[in-house]
Amino acid sequence: MSNDKDLSKIAVIGTGLLGASLTLAVKRAFPGVVTAGYSHRASTREKARDLGIADEIYDDIAGAVAGSDIVIIASPIGTFADIFAEVRGSAGPGCIVTDVGSTKVLPHKWAKQYLKGVCYVGSHPIAGSEKRGLEFARDDLFFRARCIVTVDRDTDGKAAKRLGRFWSGLGCIVSEMSPAEHDKVFARVSHVPHAVAAALVNATGDDEIKYAGKGFVDTSRVASGPASVWMDILLYNRKNIAQRMGKVIDELEKIKAAVEAGDAGKIEKLLEKARSKRAELIEYKINNKELL
Amino acid sequence: MSNDKDLSKIAVIGTGLLGASLTLAVKRAFPGVVTAGYSHRASTREKARDLGIADEIYDDIAGAVAGSDIVIIASPIGTFADIFAEVRGSAGPGCIVTDVGSTKVLPHKWAKQYLKGVCYVGSHPIAGSEKRGLEFARDDLFFRARCIVTVDRDTDGKAAKRLGRFWSGLGCIVSEMSPAEHDKVFARVSHVPHAVAAALVNATGDDEIKYAGKGFVDTSRVASGPASVWMDILLYNRKNIAQRMGKVIDELEKIKAAVEAGDAGKIEKLLEKARSKRAELIEYKINNKELL
Repeated sequence: MSNDKDLSKIAVIGTGLLGASLTLAVKRAFPGVVTAGYSHRASTREKARDLGIADEIYDDIAGAVAGSDIVIIASPIGTFADIFAEVRGSAGPGCIVTDVGSTKVLPHKWAKQYLKGVCYVGSHPIAGSEKRGLEFARDDLFFRARCIVTVDRDTDGKAAKRLGRFWSGLGCIVSEMSPAEHDKVFARVSHVPHAVAAALVNATGDDEIKYAGKGFVDTSRVASGPASVWMDILLYNRKNIAQRMGKVIDELEKIKAAVEAGDAGKIEKLLEKARSKRAELIEYKINNKELL
Repeated sequence: MSNDKDLSKIAVIGTGLLGASLTLAVKRAFPGVVTAGYSHRASTREKARDLGIADEIYDDIAGAVAGSDIVIIASPIGTFADIFAEVRGSAGPGCIVTDVGSTKVLPHKWAKQYLKGVCYVGSHPIAGSEKRGLEFARDDLFFRARCIVTVDRDTDGKAAKRLGRFWSGLGCIVSEMSPAEHDKVFARVSHVPHAVAAALVNATGDDEIKYAGKGFVDTSRVASGPASVWMDILLYNRKNIAQRMGKVIDELEKIKAAVEAGDAGKIEKLLEKARSKRAELIEYKINNKELL
């Protein structure tokens, strides 16, 4: 049952892994709510219909948006401005538009430009997969996942609260942040780790990589994410990412210098710092039931 | 049943996660073979006896080694020289001494110095865990894991083949390498990824780390490994590790430069290079049944 009695229809624009998981999760959490999906690719729409990803799959954005209480854009960030402009014409009064993009400063900026008069709140559910496509959709993808709801000075506070309740209803642990704070934090815990994983793989030769064990496979997992999606993220959060990459390089240089000097005490100190910090992270996540 | 009819006793020196998994795996794969364990800590020996990790837990190395066909050293690399000297006095004729250390050049060198007259072959099973201690031992830890058997000019070829059969019997995919080749390859696919994971965690602030999602948790997993063990590894493979860390830093600088320049094409090219290389790796591992 929905935790929002006025919720009757949800539209999801973009039915990739995240969008399709979202319609499935809504169907599971809020059985009475109608789910509408849209994809710009006819083949994806057909697949979405075949797999029963949503109650209705529309051939145009307007159809999906009409009558929806919440419209969620789950397409690459680079498409948001155009989609905002299209959504604007079809969103009814009281409709909340959000997105699931991994950066938030630019979506907020674009919303002001292209969604004029329509209520926008940013969302970033920290859920996903290195896999791609609605075939990999899961109705439990958001369960115990964090979701950041982003608000700026112009954001309607009631809409933000309602959207937060929506994500909570899907099982998310919801926090509010400003778009700027969001982009800084997620450069650090998500975007830079992706760049680091990619750099590690790129530094590894084809002849040696087959000897990789589980450690390498895990360390590099996120590098399997779709390049176009991550290109967008890196591009739309440039300053924060470049800055933090500089810090990771500094930390690598510290370890490298200790290794070159054969300074056992220094090496152990640096490794132990990481070990204990990660132990705290894992303990926090387990206590918070985020790692299931 | 053993694939080596002359195998009657195996000694494992060091009953941590790896050593204890080894005795359990031997008991499972070769039911008739006696397993002997030794730990320098009385409390660990007691725990090992309580948990039935091996047929016999000895209070001294000599007892464990006496009558053994294969002696496997599963303690930190820094302890090998002393243990070799002790094993030398107790190893019978035909006994093969090996170790499971993650670097191989120095163990081969120390074996020549301290194991004189006793047959030594290096081993590196690519198996383990970020967890520590015999409580986490698993009898299937070596199943479909790679194991590198290292041989130099002085290594007895028959002993290397026999040792390879032993690891195969536990389920390993066995390859032979020279110690130098081994240390170069594993700097790249194992030791440097550890340093990278540690640098990533060290660059991350305590206030932001709680927002980490599954991506960060996986990218940083290996950084939870015991600092003293990894300090040893980094220390004993310095040149290869420092060199490859330099290359990872170069790759990070490339991505950073592309991000700073806002060069979408370049960013996507670098991410796609990593994505496709990792896709090949995963395909290879799946086809080879290494990821189970």
